[in-house]
Amino acid sequence: MVGLVGGTVADVYTGTWVEANVEIEGGRITYVGPREPSTDARIEVGGKFVVPGYIEPHTHPWCLYSPSSLLEVAVPDGTTTLVYDNLFFFLSHGVDGLRAIVDQMNAAPAHIKWVARIAAQTALADDAFDPEVVASMLEWPEVVASGEITNWFGVTRGVFARGIAAAKQARKRIEGHNAGASYNRLNELSAAGISADHEAITGDEARDRLRLGMWTMLRQSSLRPDLEPMLRALAPIVGSARRLMFTTDGAVPSFYAANGMIGGCLRIASDLGIGPMRALQMATIDPATFLGLDEELGGVAPGRHATLNVLSAPGEWRPELVLVKGEIVARDGALLGAPPTIAWPSGPRVTAPATFTPLTGRQPVARYESAVINRRVDREVRPDDVQAALVGRDGTWITRGVIENFLDTPGFATTATTSLELLVLGKDPAAMARAARRVAEMGGGFAFDGGWSAPLEIDGLIARGGFQDALAIERDLTREMQRAGYPFHDPLYSLLFASGDFLPEVRLTPRGVLEVKTRTVLKGPSRIDTVPAP
Amino acid sequence: MVGLVGGTVADVYTGTWVEANVEIEGGRITYVGPREPSTDARIEVGGKFVVPGYIEPHTHPWCLYSPSSLLEVAVPDGTTTLVYDNLFFFLSHGVDGLRAIVDQMNAAPAHIKWVARIAAQTALADDAFDPEVVASMLEWPEVVASGEITNWFGVTRGVFARGIAAAKQARKRIEGHNAGASYNRLNELSAAGISADHEAITGDEARDRLRLGMWTMLRQSSLRPDLEPMLRALAPIVGSARRLMFTTDGAVPSFYAANGMIGGCLRIASDLGIGPMRALQMATIDPATFLGLDEELGGVAPGRHATLNVLSAPGEWRPELVLVKGEIVARDGALLGAPPTIAWPSGPRVTAPATFTPLTGRQPVARYESAVINRRVDREVRPDDVQAALVGRDGTWITRGVIENFLDTPGFATTATTSLELLVLGKDPAAMARAARRVAEMGGGFAFDGGWSAPLEIDGLIARGGFQDALAIERDLTREMQRAGYPFHDPLYSLLFASGDFLPEVRLTPRGVLEVKTRTVLKGPSRIDTVPAP
Repeated sequence: MVGLVGGTVADVYTGTWVEANVEIEGGRITYVGPREPSTDARIEVGGKFVVPGYIEPHTHPWCLYSPSSLLEVAVPDGTTTLVYDNLFFFLSHGVDGLRAIVDQMNAAPAHIKWVARIAAQTALADDAFDPEVVASMLEWPEVVASGEITNWFGVTRGVFARGIAAAKQARKRIEGHNAGASYNRLNELSAAGISADHEAITGDEARDRLRLGMWTMLRQSSLRPDLEPMLRALAPIVGSARRLMFTTDGAVPSFYAANGMIGGCLRIASDLGIGPMRALQMATIDPATFLGLDEELGGVAPGRHATLNVLSAPGEWRPELVLVKGEIVARDGALLGAPPTIAWPSGPRVTAPATFTPLTGRQPVARYESAVINRRVDREVRPDDVQAALVGRDGTWITRGVIENFLDTPGFATTATTSLELLVLGKDPAAMARAARRVAEMGGGFAFDGGWSAPLEIDGLIARGGFQDALAIERDLTREMQRAGYPFHDPLYSLLFASGDFLPEVRLTPRGVLEVKTRTVLKGPSRIDTVPAP
Repeated sequence: MVGLVGGTVADVYTGTWVEANVEIEGGRITYVGPREPSTDARIEVGGKFVVPGYIEPHTHPWCLYSPSSLLEVAVPDGTTTLVYDNLFFFLSHGVDGLRAIVDQMNAAPAHIKWVARIAAQTALADDAFDPEVVASMLEWPEVVASGEITNWFGVTRGVFARGIAAAKQARKRIEGHNAGASYNRLNELSAAGISADHEAITGDEARDRLRLGMWTMLRQSSLRPDLEPMLRALAPIVGSARRLMFTTDGAVPSFYAANGMIGGCLRIASDLGIGPMRALQMATIDPATFLGLDEELGGVAPGRHATLNVLSAPGEWRPELVLVKGEIVARDGALLGAPPTIAWPSGPRVTAPATFTPLTGRQPVARYESAVINRRVDREVRPDDVQAALVGRDGTWITRGVIENFLDTPGFATTATTSLELLVLGKDPAAMARAARRVAEMGGGFAFDGGWSAPLEIDGLIARGGFQDALAIERDLTREMQRAGYPFHDPLYSLLFASGDFLPEVRLTPRGVLEVKTRTVLKGPSRIDTVPAP
């Protein structure tokens, strides 16, 4: 038995602070109260504050970091429960490969839970989500919800009704992704069974989601760091509202290095004057209840895992000590042991085309207006335009387009795309082909022709090694993209979402150049008949 | 489509009131907001307040009323979701008989949910709760939790670990019954997996349960009307606490006739100055979330059942109109249609013994101190003592004792006992035998020898007919018991619990006269060898 002695404990259930000792046996809390623990294994926490580990209910563990290396920043931050998206691991490795990853992550110094998607992020991969396979994944004990449904238009048309019913059958929540949905659409989405949303970008949008019955995650990500204005606008109802949570939604490595994870959200809440207890509830018991984990996590009470943060003061959110299942796993911002090494199943090989043929004549050009939003401009292609191509990893098809205000380079290629294909950009077809070939040789990654390159050998998205390796790649990518004229704030997500069919206005997809809002294919893909380069 | 137009809607999610119309299709809410409904089926609620139907999370539908007749008082009160204990129906009719009752109650003008017990109310019936049968019942869609475990001492010793694990496996809550448990015991019970409790009788006890992670029902029953003092004591934390609910815990008919059901609890909260929104949350979204029903019930939001109360003002809790699944089912305190008629499966026959032999000499006498609590007094039996006997319904065994300060009568018998046996009391063995025989002839009920009697033909507990029939029997029983010297406030529960092995101090049980706290059998049962009376 281990005793935490002399501290003040957060009672997130009644919203009060209590002087109490905590007894722990077998990794679980067995007692909270005034009794003196009968043990020599005492952790003296006099003057300190004992709070539940923070919960990140929604993240994508593949933004250069891996499900494992992400823990190097999450756990010292006090974020000890993470709900991971299964998307790419399922698509790349199938249900058995995913299961092996889930098993290995069960050994992590954190509680790793998963969502089971009922649909892909891009509509074209939806076929992979066989309803029976999804239903079986929804029964896994590690699976706590169904993953976000990006195609909310499809939800309102009943496309995902079977998957939604399967999730409800398993008594698990259905995460939505209702970006930009109008108030009337939000009504339809709630009526269709969407349980939660993390896509509000204003306080009004967040309030509407709550009001219409959705559990609402307030997002502070690298792409959309909207927490502060949302919390300001929600000030009148933060005290009385339930069902508010924080999420960082798969931010880039530098964001986590600078801000931590849920701790960063808590710091913003505290800076805005939200009381530490109310903020803490949003980071602990509210997501635990949302996820049906509140008998396991989210509070300092008997029966729960002894997954606790020791703070110097309420509102000083960076823990001095982090316990997971009763073991000290981080101290003063440093993880004490290594997270698990995942034996990655091999992902698909990347095959680069030997040549690129530039588009000419009048074309729908994707003119970028922000890191992830572009507008369609129909005009004649100029010789100095940047050609863009999405190429099937098997090298059999290519979708060609033209983009503007994004990157000014002779040739660049990457596998870091949300459709798991090869994205190639540039003004010089030969340079494009060389960059693509370099990426194929590395087994995924980034390559500027004749310049910087970095491998992403895991699924074409994830760096081998630890979190610092991912961070270094992001730093280099940002530097090199800015050097090539990239004008926005999130190079990684710009690349990832260039093929995402859920953002306006023009996207490169396996079906061709897609106008997203009208779901119109402006130009189909071509078949690649030439023998691929070796 | 039906539209509720012009009202102010309770948004229990953010804790605010909103002017909004409500659209309903197929019994579900499809829209809440400013839009004008495009329908002729308008219900004008201008100046009125639209709130979710109230939820009673814990009740025992057999206190003279039936699962059906109870709705005559519940629904007009606005209590439209009731969680029913399956105990006696399972014990009397088995899993198939229970299933038939559940099916029939699905046609009720209310949402009838059930708990599946993992143990009986009295330890001796526990054998009936085969773990595999229980696990199958826990999967029923109507079953929203496992039922209260009265024997909390057994819980702390791990006796019910298998059943608790089965409920958790089914992602359903485990209700406790932690009456009188000390703070240290409450820690053990929470650690053992108990999710909830309804047995606090002071504010401190309620706060301790919350703090230790249990969802806490504040009880206002006929036996224990403790809500007002508890709410007074909890005033400092009612605003910040989550997981507070109300329950009436199977009160007697006259209590419901006078107070309604959850509406009565809300009125007490309002009288104490608790804001209408906070009180409403305790009656709606909090129990819905506890039960995992919050995507179906507990809020006025799309996707939920259109089960709504229309109030003249917040705090005026008696609804002018009650809708269940979009249909108006009650108006101004009156149910509009008849609740379902249950085709009761036949229960066990009652066999009365032909004779009673009084105890003599030194005996452990049960001296009643309140309606349900007695103390052991060892003394010589006097000729004018009231003999008590619990007789197996099959007439093969008898447990004999002596009680004091309870009822002064020559002979009285009833089947209204928590062990489903026949309880016989009196000073005159012949009168006792006649009363017992009268009850057996009626197929269950109450009988004073040569005096008032009333049949309880359904399981020996429930009156045929409607709620008024149950109310009349209770009124007569009270009058007759008071006439016979009964000195307390709850005659029905005094009888029910005379054989309950979970209350101090001396009880008549099938195993004999039991001293509850020490679990000692003071005097075993006798076998009845005489031929029973026809």
